[in-house]
Amino acid sequence: MEPLRSIDRLSLNQITTDRLNMSEAVEACVRAEVPWIALWRHKVAEAGLAESKRLVRDAGLRVSSLCRGGYFPAATATERKKRMDDNRRAVEEAAELGTDVLVLVCGPAPDRDIDFARKTVEEAIAELAPFARSHGVKLGIEPLHPMYAAERSVINTLAQANTLAEQHDPQDVGVVVDAFHVWWDPELYGQIERARGRILGFHVSDWVVPVPDLLMGRGMMGDGVIELRRMRHAVEVAGYTGAIEVEIFNRQVWDMPGDEALALIKERYLQHV
Amino acid sequence: MEPLRSIDRLSLNQITTDRLNMSEAVEACVRAEVPWIALWRHKVAEAGLAESKRLVRDAGLRVSSLCRGGYFPAATATERKKRMDDNRRAVEEAAELGTDVLVLVCGPAPDRDIDFARKTVEEAIAELAPFARSHGVKLGIEPLHPMYAAERSVINTLAQANTLAEQHDPQDVGVVVDAFHVWWDPELYGQIERARGRILGFHVSDWVVPVPDLLMGRGMMGDGVIELRRMRHAVEVAGYTGAIEVEIFNRQVWDMPGDEALALIKERYLQHV
Repeated sequence: MEPLRSIDRLSLNQITTDRLNMSEAVEACVRAEVPWIALWRHKVAEAGLAESKRLVRDAGLRVSSLCRGGYFPAATATERKKRMDDNRRAVEEAAELGTDVLVLVCGPAPDRDIDFARKTVEEAIAELAPFARSHGVKLGIEPLHPMYAAERSVINTLAQANTLAEQHDPQDVGVVVDAFHVWWDPELYGQIERARGRILGFHVSDWVVPVPDLLMGRGMMGDGVIELRRMRHAVEVAGYTGAIEVEIFNRQVWDMPGDEALALIKERYLQHV
Repeated sequence: MEPLRSIDRLSLNQITTDRLNMSEAVEACVRAEVPWIALWRHKVAEAGLAESKRLVRDAGLRVSSLCRGGYFPAATATERKKRMDDNRRAVEEAAELGTDVLVLVCGPAPDRDIDFARKTVEEAIAELAPFARSHGVKLGIEPLHPMYAAERSVINTLAQANTLAEQHDPQDVGVVVDAFHVWWDPELYGQIERARGRILGFHVSDWVVPVPDLLMGRGMMGDGVIELRRMRHAVEVAGYTGAIEVEIFNRQVWDMPGDEALALIKERYLQHV
Protein backbone atom coordinates (compact mmCIF):
# COMPACT_ATOMS: atom_id res chain seq x y z
CA MET A 1 0.00 0.00 0.00
CA GLU A 2 1.52 3.20 -1.26
CA PRO A 3 1.81 6.23 1.04
CA LEU A 4 0.11 9.43 -0.05
CA ARG A 5 2.53 11.55 -2.01
CA SER A 6 0.96 14.92 -1.32
CA ILE A 7 -1.44 16.68 0.99
CA ASP A 8 -3.87 17.53 -1.79
CA ARG A 9 -6.63 15.50 -0.10
CA LEU A 10 -5.86 16.63 3.45
CA SER A 11 -8.68 18.43 5.24
CA LEU A 12 -8.41 20.09 8.63
CA ASN A 13 -11.49 19.22 10.63
CA GLN A 14 -11.99 22.38 12.62
CA ILE A 15 -12.51 20.58 15.94
CA THR A 16 -8.86 19.47 15.79
CA THR A 17 -7.80 23.07 16.39
CA ASP A 18 -10.74 24.01 18.60
CA ARG A 19 -9.02 27.00 20.19
CA LEU A 20 -8.74 28.76 16.83
CA ASN A 21 -11.67 30.81 15.61
CA MET A 22 -12.84 30.63 11.99
CA SER A 23 -10.46 33.25 10.72
CA GLU A 24 -7.46 31.80 12.56
CA ALA A 25 -8.21 28.26 11.36
CA VAL A 26 -8.57 29.42 7.77
CA GLU A 27 -5.31 31.38 7.93
CA ALA A 28 -3.48 28.42 9.47
CA CYS A 29 -4.65 26.19 6.60
CA VAL A 30 -3.47 28.73 4.06
CA ARG A 31 -0.04 29.05 5.67
CA ALA A 32 0.28 25.26 5.84
CA GLU A 33 -1.06 24.87 2.28
CA VAL A 34 -3.76 22.53 3.51
CA PRO A 35 -6.35 22.74 0.73
CA TRP A 36 -9.48 21.54 2.57
CA ILE A 37 -11.30 22.40 5.76
CA ALA A 38 -14.27 20.75 7.50
CA LEU A 39 -16.43 23.18 9.38
CA TRP A 40 -18.40 22.85 12.61
CA ARG A 41 -21.67 24.65 13.05
CA HIS A 42 -20.81 26.23 16.38
CA LYS A 43 -17.71 27.77 14.83
CA VAL A 44 -19.73 28.98 11.84
CA ALA A 45 -22.31 30.50 14.19
CA GLU A 46 -19.57 32.22 16.15
CA ALA A 47 -18.09 33.89 13.06
CA GLY A 48 -21.42 34.30 11.28
CA LEU A 49 -22.51 32.29 8.25
CA ALA A 50 -21.82 34.96 5.63
CA GLU A 51 -18.45 35.85 7.14
CA SER A 52 -17.45 32.18 7.39
CA LYS A 53 -18.33 31.70 3.74
CA ARG A 54 -16.34 34.78 2.76
CA LEU A 55 -13.28 33.77 4.79
CA VAL A 56 -13.18 30.28 3.35
CA ARG A 57 -13.83 31.40 -0.23
CA ASP A 58 -11.33 34.25 -0.16
CA ALA A 59 -8.70 31.87 1.19
CA GLY A 60 -9.34 29.48 -1.69
CA LEU A 61 -10.15 26.63 0.69
CA ARG A 62 -12.59 23.86 -0.20
CA VAL A 63 -15.06 22.70 2.42
CA SER A 64 -15.08 18.91 2.74
CA SER A 65 -18.12 18.74 5.06
CA LEU A 66 -20.21 20.52 7.63
CA CYS A 67 -20.44 18.88 11.01
CA ARG A 68 -23.08 18.20 12.15
CA GLY A 69 -26.73 17.40 11.70
CA GLY A 70 -28.50 14.63 13.57
CA TYR A 71 -29.52 14.21 17.19
CA PHE A 72 -32.89 13.02 15.92
CA PRO A 73 -34.39 10.98 18.80
CA ALA A 74 -36.09 13.09 21.46
CA ALA A 75 -38.51 12.52 24.30
CA THR A 76 -41.38 14.52 22.83
CA ALA A 77 -42.87 15.21 19.40
CA THR A 78 -42.30 18.94 19.94
CA GLU A 79 -38.64 18.38 20.63
CA ARG A 80 -38.29 16.02 17.65
CA LYS A 81 -39.81 18.69 15.41
CA LYS A 82 -37.40 21.28 16.81
CA ARG A 83 -34.48 18.99 16.01
CA MET A 84 -35.77 18.47 12.48
CA ASP A 85 -36.05 22.24 11.97
CA ASP A 86 -32.48 22.57 13.15
CA ASN A 87 -31.40 19.88 10.70
CA ARG A 88 -32.99 21.80 7.86
CA ARG A 89 -31.00 24.84 8.91
CA ALA A 90 -27.87 22.69 8.92
CA VAL A 91 -28.60 21.63 5.33
CA GLU A 92 -29.04 25.26 4.30
CA GLU A 93 -25.78 26.20 5.98
CA ALA A 94 -23.93 23.38 4.24
CA ALA A 95 -25.23 24.54 0.87
CA GLU A 96 -24.35 28.14 1.65
CA LEU A 97 -20.82 27.18 2.74
CA GLY A 98 -20.24 25.32 -0.51
CA THR A 99 -20.02 21.75 0.71
CA ASP A 100 -22.27 18.95 -0.47
CA VAL A 101 -21.85 16.82 2.68
CA LEU A 102 -23.67 17.26 5.96
CA VAL A 103 -22.28 14.83 8.51
CA LEU A 104 -24.96 13.21 10.69
CA VAL A 105 -24.23 12.29 14.30
CA CYS A 106 -27.57 10.65 14.81
CA GLY A 107 -28.02 11.14 18.56
CA PRO A 108 -28.72 8.97 21.62
CA ALA A 109 -32.04 7.57 22.83
CA PRO A 110 -33.94 9.76 25.30
CA ASP A 111 -34.66 6.63 27.39
CA ARG A 112 -33.75 2.92 27.55
CA ASP A 113 -35.48 2.05 24.26
CA ILE A 114 -32.56 1.99 21.85
CA ASP A 115 -34.54 0.13 19.17
CA PHE A 116 -37.15 2.85 19.08
CA ALA A 117 -34.48 5.53 18.87
CA ARG A 118 -32.93 3.71 15.92
CA LYS A 119 -36.32 3.64 14.21
CA THR A 120 -36.64 7.40 14.86
CA VAL A 121 -33.29 7.98 13.16
CA GLU A 122 -34.41 6.01 10.13
CA GLU A 123 -37.62 8.03 9.82
CA ALA A 124 -35.87 11.34 10.37
CA ILE A 125 -33.32 10.66 7.63
CA ALA A 126 -36.12 9.72 5.26
CA GLU A 127 -37.82 13.02 6.09
CA LEU A 128 -34.65 15.10 5.75
CA ALA A 129 -33.25 13.54 2.57
CA PRO A 130 -35.57 15.20 0.01
CA PHE A 131 -34.98 18.60 1.60
CA ALA A 132 -31.23 18.03 1.49
CA ARG A 133 -31.38 16.89 -2.13
CA SER A 134 -33.23 20.04 -3.11
CA HIS A 135 -30.27 21.98 -1.67
CA GLY A 136 -27.64 19.84 -3.38
CA VAL A 137 -26.53 18.41 -0.04
CA LYS A 138 -25.90 14.74 0.75
CA LEU A 139 -26.45 13.28 4.20
CA GLY A 140 -23.41 11.41 5.49
CA ILE A 141 -24.34 8.98 8.25
CA GLU A 142 -21.34 8.62 10.53
CA PRO A 143 -21.47 5.56 12.76
CA LEU A 144 -20.06 6.42 16.19
CA HIS A 145 -18.05 4.07 18.38
CA PRO A 146 -20.32 1.84 20.54
CA MET A 147 -18.96 3.56 23.65
CA TYR A 148 -20.98 6.60 22.55
CA ALA A 149 -24.23 4.65 22.07
CA ALA A 150 -25.83 6.06 25.22
CA GLU A 151 -24.66 9.63 24.84
CA ARG A 152 -24.08 10.57 21.22
CA SER A 153 -25.41 8.14 18.64
CA VAL A 154 -27.44 4.96 18.42
CA ILE A 155 -25.84 4.28 15.02
CA ASN A 156 -22.72 2.37 16.02
CA THR A 157 -21.53 0.23 13.14
CA LEU A 158 -20.84 0.75 9.48
CA ALA A 159 -23.28 -2.11 8.78
CA GLN A 160 -26.06 -0.12 10.43
CA ALA A 161 -25.12 3.05 8.55
CA ASN A 162 -25.02 1.12 5.27
CA THR A 163 -28.45 -0.41 5.91
CA LEU A 164 -29.87 3.06 6.56
CA ALA A 165 -28.15 4.62 3.56
CA GLU A 166 -29.25 1.87 1.19
CA GLN A 167 -32.86 2.95 1.65
CA HIS A 168 -31.97 6.03 -0.38
CA ASP A 169 -30.43 7.04 -3.67
CA PRO A 170 -26.61 7.11 -3.38
CA GLN A 171 -26.83 10.72 -4.55
CA ASP A 172 -28.78 11.61 -1.40
CA VAL A 173 -27.55 9.54 1.52
CA GLY A 174 -24.21 7.92 2.20
CA VAL A 175 -21.84 7.06 5.02
CA VAL A 176 -18.82 8.66 6.64
CA VAL A 177 -16.02 6.33 7.72
CA ASP A 178 -14.18 7.63 10.77
CA ALA A 179 -11.26 5.37 11.64
CA PHE A 180 -11.55 6.01 15.39
CA HIS A 181 -15.15 4.85 15.45
CA VAL A 182 -14.93 1.75 13.29
CA TRP A 183 -11.38 0.34 13.49
CA TRP A 184 -12.34 -2.42 16.00
CA ASP A 185 -15.18 -3.80 13.86
CA PRO A 186 -14.60 -7.39 12.67
CA GLU A 187 -16.88 -6.64 9.71
CA LEU A 188 -15.10 -3.40 8.80
CA TYR A 189 -13.52 -4.25 5.47
CA GLY A 190 -16.59 -6.06 4.16
CA GLN A 191 -18.74 -3.10 5.12
CA ILE A 192 -16.37 -0.61 3.47
CA GLU A 193 -16.69 -2.63 0.28
CA ARG A 194 -20.48 -2.70 0.73
CA ALA A 195 -20.44 1.10 1.00
CA ARG A 196 -18.98 1.43 -2.50
CA GLY A 197 -20.39 4.52 -4.19
CA ARG A 198 -21.78 5.82 -0.90
CA ILE A 199 -18.68 6.87 1.02
CA LEU A 200 -18.96 10.60 1.61
CA GLY A 201 -16.02 11.09 3.92
CA PHE A 202 -13.00 9.48 5.53
CA HIS A 203 -11.79 10.77 8.92
CA VAL A 204 -8.51 9.89 10.54
CA SER A 205 -7.03 10.07 14.03
CA ASP A 206 -5.73 7.21 16.18
CA TRP A 207 -6.69 4.99 19.12
CA VAL A 208 -4.02 5.35 21.77
CA VAL A 209 -3.31 2.77 24.45
CA PRO A 210 -4.28 3.15 27.18
CA VAL A 211 -7.25 5.32 26.26
CA PRO A 212 -6.80 8.49 28.28
CA ASP A 213 -10.40 9.70 28.09
CA LEU A 214 -13.67 8.62 26.53
CA LEU A 215 -14.24 11.80 24.55
CA MET A 216 -10.95 13.67 24.52
CA GLY A 217 -8.70 10.65 24.09
CA ARG A 218 -8.21 10.50 20.34
CA GLY A 219 -4.63 10.38 19.26
CA MET A 220 -2.56 11.87 16.48
CA MET A 221 -2.12 9.50 13.54
CA GLY A 222 0.69 7.09 14.30
CA ASP A 223 0.37 7.32 18.07
CA GLY A 224 -2.06 4.42 18.32
CA VAL A 225 -3.09 1.02 17.02
CA ILE A 226 -5.28 1.79 14.01
CA GLU A 227 -4.19 0.43 10.63
CA LEU A 228 -4.84 3.80 8.98
CA ARG A 229 -3.12 3.11 5.68
CA ARG A 230 -4.94 -0.16 5.23
CA MET A 231 -8.25 1.55 5.89
CA ARG A 232 -7.45 4.44 3.54
CA HIS A 233 -6.57 1.94 0.87
CA ALA A 234 -9.86 0.09 1.44
CA VAL A 235 -12.01 3.21 1.07
CA GLU A 236 -10.11 4.06 -2.12
CA VAL A 237 -10.70 0.57 -3.51
CA ALA A 238 -14.38 1.17 -2.68
CA GLY A 239 -14.28 4.28 -4.84
CA TYR A 240 -13.65 7.10 -2.39
CA THR A 241 -11.02 9.54 -3.56
CA GLY A 242 -12.28 12.66 -1.77
CA ALA A 243 -10.91 14.65 1.13
CA ILE A 244 -9.38 12.96 4.16
CA GLU A 245 -10.34 14.83 7.29
CA VAL A 246 -8.07 14.89 10.30
CA GLU A 247 -10.47 15.00 13.24
CA ILE A 248 -8.80 14.76 16.64
CA PHE A 249 -10.46 15.51 19.96
CA ASN A 250 -7.37 15.90 22.12
CA ARG A 251 -6.49 18.58 24.62
CA GLN A 252 -2.76 18.35 23.94
CA VAL A 253 -3.39 19.04 20.27
CA TRP A 254 -5.72 21.88 21.24
CA ASP A 255 -2.99 23.36 23.39
CA MET A 256 -0.49 23.43 20.54
CA PRO A 257 -0.09 26.64 18.51
CA GLY A 258 -2.11 26.22 15.30
CA ASP A 259 0.87 26.25 12.93
CA GLU A 260 2.64 23.64 15.00
CA ALA A 261 -0.45 21.42 15.08
CA LEU A 262 -0.81 21.66 11.31
CA ALA A 263 2.86 20.88 10.72
CA LEU A 264 2.56 17.76 12.85
CA ILE A 265 -0.69 16.76 11.15
CA LYS A 266 0.91 17.03 7.71
CA GLU A 267 3.91 15.00 8.78
CA ARG A 268 1.86 12.23 10.36
CA TYR A 269 -0.65 12.23 7.52
CA LEU A 270 2.06 11.46 5.00
CA GLN A 271 3.74 8.95 7.30
CA HIS A 272 0.72 6.99 8.49
CA VAL A 273 -2.38 7.54 6.35
CA MET B 1 -41.75 -9.97 30.83
CA GLU B 2 -42.03 -11.35 34.32
CA PRO B 3 -39.61 -10.25 37.02
CA LEU B 4 -37.55 -12.92 38.75
CA ARG B 5 -39.34 -14.12 41.86
CA SER B 6 -36.33 -15.31 43.80
CA ILE B 7 -32.60 -15.02 43.97
CA ASP B 8 -32.03 -18.70 43.32
CA ARG B 9 -30.09 -17.90 40.12
CA LEU B 10 -28.17 -14.95 41.54
CA SER B 11 -24.39 -15.28 41.52
CA LEU B 12 -21.96 -12.84 43.08
CA ASN B 13 -19.11 -12.29 40.71
CA GLN B 14 -16.23 -11.83 43.08
CA ILE B 15 -14.87 -8.73 41.35
CA THR B 16 -18.00 -6.85 42.42
CA THR B 17 -16.79 -6.99 46.03
CA ASP B 18 -13.10 -6.77 45.21
CA ARG B 19 -12.06 -5.60 48.67
CA LEU B 20 -13.30 -8.83 50.27
CA ASN B 21 -10.98 -11.80 50.35
CA MET B 22 -12.22 -15.29 49.51
CA SER B 23 -13.40 -16.12 52.99
CA GLU B 24 -15.17 -12.77 53.45
CA ALA B 25 -16.92 -13.01 50.07
CA VAL B 26 -18.10 -16.54 50.79
CA GLU B 27 -19.41 -15.54 54.22
CA ALA B 28 -21.19 -12.51 52.78
CA CYS B 29 -22.94 -14.74 50.24
CA VAL B 30 -24.01 -17.13 52.97
CA ARG B 31 -25.40 -14.33 55.15
CA ALA B 32 -27.26 -12.87 52.16
CA GLU B 33 -28.44 -16.32 51.06
CA VAL B 34 -26.94 -15.77 47.62
CA PRO B 35 -26.54 -19.34 46.31
CA TRP B 36 -23.87 -18.85 43.64
CA ILE B 37 -20.47 -17.27 43.39
CA ALA B 38 -18.18 -16.62 40.40
CA LEU B 39 -14.51 -16.79 41.27
CA TRP B 40 -11.52 -14.87 39.97
CA ARG B 41 -8.16 -16.54 39.67
CA HIS B 42 -6.21 -13.86 41.51
CA LYS B 43 -8.55 -14.26 44.48
CA VAL B 44 -8.22 -18.03 44.33
CA ALA B 45 -4.44 -17.71 44.22
CA GLU B 46 -4.49 -15.36 47.20
CA ALA B 47 -6.47 -17.81 49.35
CA GLY B 48 -4.92 -20.92 47.85
CA LEU B 49 -6.73 -23.33 45.53
CA ALA B 50 -7.43 -26.04 48.13
CA GLU B 51 -8.57 -23.53 50.74
CA SER B 52 -10.81 -21.72 48.20
CA LYS B 53 -12.39 -25.03 47.27
CA ARG B 54 -12.94 -25.91 50.92
CA LEU B 55 -14.44 -22.52 51.79
CA VAL B 56 -16.89 -22.58 48.90
CA ARG B 57 -17.88 -26.21 49.44
CA ASP B 58 -18.31 -25.93 53.19
CA ALA B 59 -20.50 -22.86 52.68
CA GLY B 60 -22.71 -24.81 50.30
CA LEU B 61 -22.13 -22.31 47.49
CA ARG B 62 -22.16 -23.30 43.83
CA VAL B 63 -19.51 -21.85 41.53
CA SER B 64 -21.04 -20.41 38.35
CA SER B 65 -17.73 -19.78 36.59
CA LEU B 66 -14.04 -19.15 36.96
CA CYS B 67 -12.76 -15.90 35.51
CA ARG B 68 -10.61 -15.91 33.49
CA GLY B 69 -8.66 -17.70 30.84
CA GLY B 70 -7.64 -16.10 27.57
CA TYR B 71 -5.11 -13.40 26.69
CA PHE B 72 -3.99 -15.60 23.83
CA PRO B 73 -2.26 -13.24 21.35
CA ALA B 74 1.33 -12.46 22.21
CA ALA B 75 4.33 -10.99 20.46
CA THR B 76 6.47 -14.14 20.55
CA ALA B 77 5.95 -17.89 20.25
CA THR B 78 7.52 -18.33 23.69
CA GLU B 79 5.06 -15.92 25.24
CA ARG B 80 2.12 -17.55 23.42
CA LYS B 81 3.18 -20.92 24.78
CA LYS B 82 3.42 -19.47 28.29
CA ARG B 83 -0.11 -18.11 27.96
CA MET B 84 -1.38 -21.49 26.76
CA ASP B 85 0.25 -23.20 29.75
CA ASP B 86 -1.47 -20.71 32.01
CA ASN B 87 -4.79 -21.43 30.32
CA ARG B 88 -4.35 -25.13 31.00
CA ARG B 89 -3.80 -24.30 34.66
CA ALA B 90 -6.98 -22.19 34.58
CA VAL B 91 -8.90 -25.19 33.23
CA GLU B 92 -7.51 -27.39 36.00
CA GLU B 93 -8.45 -24.80 38.61
CA ALA B 94 -12.00 -24.53 37.25
CA ALA B 95 -12.41 -28.30 37.45
CA GLU B 96 -10.96 -28.37 40.95
CA LEU B 97 -13.27 -25.57 42.11
CA GLY B 98 -16.31 -27.43 40.84
CA THR B 99 -17.40 -25.22 37.98
CA ASP B 100 -17.74 -26.34 34.38
CA VAL B 101 -17.28 -22.87 32.91
CA LEU B 102 -14.00 -21.08 32.30
CA VAL B 103 -14.68 -17.55 31.07
CA LEU B 104 -12.35 -16.44 28.29
CA VAL B 105 -11.29 -12.83 27.96
CA CYS B 106 -9.40 -13.38 24.76
CA GLY B 107 -6.81 -10.61 24.98
CA PRO B 108 -5.62 -7.69 22.82
CA ALA B 109 -3.26 -7.74 19.86
CA PRO B 110 0.42 -7.22 20.68
CA ASP B 111 0.67 -4.83 17.70
CA ARG B 112 -1.56 -3.13 15.11
CA ASP B 113 -2.54 -6.39 13.39
CA ILE B 114 -5.96 -7.08 14.91
CA ASP B 115 -6.88 -9.63 12.23
CA PHE B 116 -3.86 -11.73 13.06
CA ALA B 117 -4.65 -11.52 16.77
CA ARG B 118 -8.19 -12.73 16.05
CA LYS B 119 -6.76 -15.67 14.11
CA THR B 120 -4.47 -16.43 17.07
CA VAL B 121 -7.50 -16.52 19.38
CA GLU B 122 -9.26 -18.95 17.07
CA GLU B 123 -6.27 -21.27 16.99
CA ALA B 124 -5.70 -21.06 20.73
CA ILE B 125 -9.29 -21.98 21.52
CA ALA B 126 -9.06 -24.95 19.16
CA GLU B 127 -5.91 -26.03 20.99
CA LEU B 128 -7.37 -25.54 24.46
CA ALA B 129 -10.81 -27.07 23.89
CA PRO B 130 -9.82 -30.78 23.96
CA PHE B 131 -7.83 -30.24 27.15
CA ALA B 132 -10.80 -28.45 28.73
CA ARG B 133 -13.19 -31.20 27.64
CA SER B 134 -10.99 -33.84 29.24
CA HIS B 135 -11.39 -31.91 32.51
CA GLY B 136 -15.16 -31.47 32.14
CA VAL B 137 -14.75 -27.74 31.61
CA LYS B 138 -16.43 -25.66 28.91
CA LEU B 139 -14.81 -22.57 27.43
CA GLY B 140 -17.09 -19.52 27.56
CA ILE B 141 -16.03 -16.88 25.05
CA GLU B 142 -17.05 -13.51 26.43
CA PRO B 143 -17.12 -10.75 23.84
CA LEU B 144 -15.86 -7.51 25.37
CA HIS B 145 -17.12 -4.04 24.53
CA PRO B 146 -15.36 -2.55 21.48
CA MET B 147 -13.82 0.11 23.72
CA TYR B 148 -11.63 -2.68 25.12
CA ALA B 149 -10.50 -3.93 21.70
CA ALA B 150 -7.01 -2.45 22.04
CA GLU B 151 -6.39 -3.37 25.66
CA ARG B 152 -8.37 -6.46 26.70
CA SER B 153 -9.97 -8.44 23.91
CA VAL B 154 -10.08 -8.55 20.15
CA ILE B 155 -13.39 -10.44 20.41
CA ASN B 156 -15.90 -7.61 20.54
CA THR B 157 -19.28 -8.80 19.36
CA LEU B 158 -21.54 -11.72 20.11
CA ALA B 159 -21.52 -12.50 16.38
CA GLN B 160 -17.76 -13.00 16.55
CA ALA B 161 -18.01 -15.15 19.67
CA ASN B 162 -20.74 -17.25 18.06
CA THR B 163 -18.68 -17.77 14.92
CA LEU B 164 -15.75 -18.95 17.05
CA ALA B 165 -17.89 -21.17 19.26
CA GLU B 166 -19.67 -22.80 16.31
CA GLN B 167 -16.40 -24.37 15.24
CA HIS B 168 -16.73 -26.64 18.28
CA ASP B 169 -19.15 -29.01 19.94
CA PRO B 170 -21.65 -27.05 22.10
CA GLN B 171 -20.49 -29.25 24.98
CA ASP B 172 -17.01 -27.79 24.68
CA VAL B 173 -17.20 -24.13 23.67
CA GLY B 174 -19.92 -21.54 24.16
CA VAL B 175 -20.44 -17.86 24.78
CA VAL B 176 -20.94 -15.63 27.80
CA VAL B 177 -23.37 -12.75 27.40
CA ASP B 178 -22.41 -9.75 29.53
CA ALA B 179 -25.01 -7.01 29.29
CA PHE B 180 -22.45 -4.21 29.70
CA HIS B 181 -20.40 -5.43 26.76
CA VAL B 182 -23.17 -6.17 24.26
CA TRP B 183 -26.18 -3.94 25.02
CA TRP B 184 -25.37 -1.44 22.24
CA ASP B 185 -25.17 -4.07 19.49
CA PRO B 186 -27.85 -3.68 16.80
CA GLU B 187 -27.54 -7.43 16.12
CA LEU B 188 -27.83 -8.39 19.79
CA TYR B 189 -31.15 -10.21 19.90
CA GLY B 190 -30.54 -12.12 16.68
CA GLN B 191 -27.15 -13.20 17.99
CA ILE B 192 -28.59 -14.30 21.35
CA GLU B 193 -31.03 -16.49 19.43
CA ARG B 194 -28.16 -17.78 17.30
CA ALA B 195 -26.31 -18.72 20.52
CA ARG B 196 -29.11 -21.10 21.54
CA GLY B 197 -27.64 -24.11 23.33
CA ARG B 198 -24.27 -22.40 23.70
CA ILE B 199 -24.92 -19.71 26.28
CA LEU B 200 -22.72 -20.52 29.26
CA GLY B 201 -23.30 -17.41 31.33
CA PHE B 202 -25.25 -14.19 31.66
CA HIS B 203 -23.67 -11.22 33.45
CA VAL B 204 -25.48 -8.10 34.54
CA SER B 205 -24.52 -4.56 35.57
CA ASP B 206 -25.55 -1.30 33.91
CA TRP B 207 -24.29 1.42 31.58
CA VAL B 208 -24.55 4.74 33.37
CA VAL B 209 -24.73 8.11 31.64
CA PRO B 210 -22.37 9.84 31.49
CA VAL B 211 -19.82 7.03 31.65
CA PRO B 212 -17.58 7.95 34.57
CA ASP B 213 -14.61 5.77 33.61
CA LEU B 214 -13.66 3.34 30.89
CA LEU B 215 -12.89 0.42 33.20
CA MET B 216 -14.39 1.30 36.57
CA GLY B 217 -17.57 2.92 35.30
CA ARG B 218 -20.03 0.03 35.37
CA GLY B 219 -23.21 0.79 37.22
CA MET B 220 -25.51 -1.07 39.56
CA MET B 221 -28.51 -2.59 37.77
CA GLY B 222 -31.16 0.07 37.34
CA ASP B 223 -28.76 3.01 37.39
CA GLY B 224 -28.23 3.03 33.64
CA VAL B 225 -29.76 2.53 30.22
CA ILE B 226 -29.53 -1.22 29.61
CA GLU B 227 -32.76 -3.13 29.02
CA LEU B 228 -31.69 -5.86 31.45
CA ARG B 229 -35.02 -7.63 31.78
CA ARG B 230 -35.46 -7.81 28.03
CA MET B 231 -31.99 -9.27 27.66
CA ARG B 232 -32.53 -11.78 30.48
CA HIS B 233 -35.76 -12.84 28.82
CA ALA B 234 -33.96 -13.27 25.48
CA VAL B 235 -31.25 -15.51 26.90
CA GLU B 236 -33.94 -17.59 28.61
CA VAL B 237 -35.86 -17.94 25.36
CA ALA B 238 -32.55 -19.09 23.85
CA GLY B 239 -32.41 -21.83 26.48
CA TYR B 240 -30.21 -20.36 29.20
CA THR B 241 -31.60 -20.90 32.68
CA GLY B 242 -28.35 -20.96 34.63
CA ALA B 243 -26.80 -18.54 37.09
CA ILE B 244 -26.99 -14.80 36.54
CA GLU B 245 -23.74 -13.18 37.61
CA VAL B 246 -23.66 -9.66 38.96
CA GLU B 247 -20.32 -8.33 37.78
CA ILE B 248 -19.73 -4.66 38.53
CA PHE B 249 -16.39 -2.86 38.30
CA ASN B 250 -17.20 0.21 40.35
CA ARG B 251 -15.21 1.85 43.12
CA GLN B 252 -18.30 3.05 44.97
CA VAL B 253 -19.58 -0.52 45.15
CA TRP B 254 -16.11 -1.65 46.22
CA ASP B 255 -16.18 0.91 49.00
CA MET B 256 -19.49 -0.34 50.41
CA PRO B 257 -19.40 -2.85 53.27
CA GLY B 258 -19.96 -6.33 51.78
CA ASP B 259 -23.33 -6.97 53.40
CA GLU B 260 -24.63 -3.62 52.23
CA ALA B 261 -23.43 -4.26 48.67
CA LEU B 262 -25.12 -7.65 48.63
CA ALA B 263 -28.39 -6.24 49.99
CA LEU B 264 -28.42 -3.63 47.25
CA ILE B 265 -27.51 -6.19 44.59
CA LYS B 266 -30.41 -8.45 45.65
CA GLU B 267 -32.86 -5.56 45.62
CA ARG B 268 -31.78 -4.29 42.19
CA TYR B 269 -31.60 -7.81 40.79
CA LEU B 270 -35.24 -8.46 41.59
CA GLN B 271 -36.29 -4.99 40.43
CA HIS B 272 -34.39 -4.74 37.16
CA VAL B 273 -33.14 -8.09 35.87
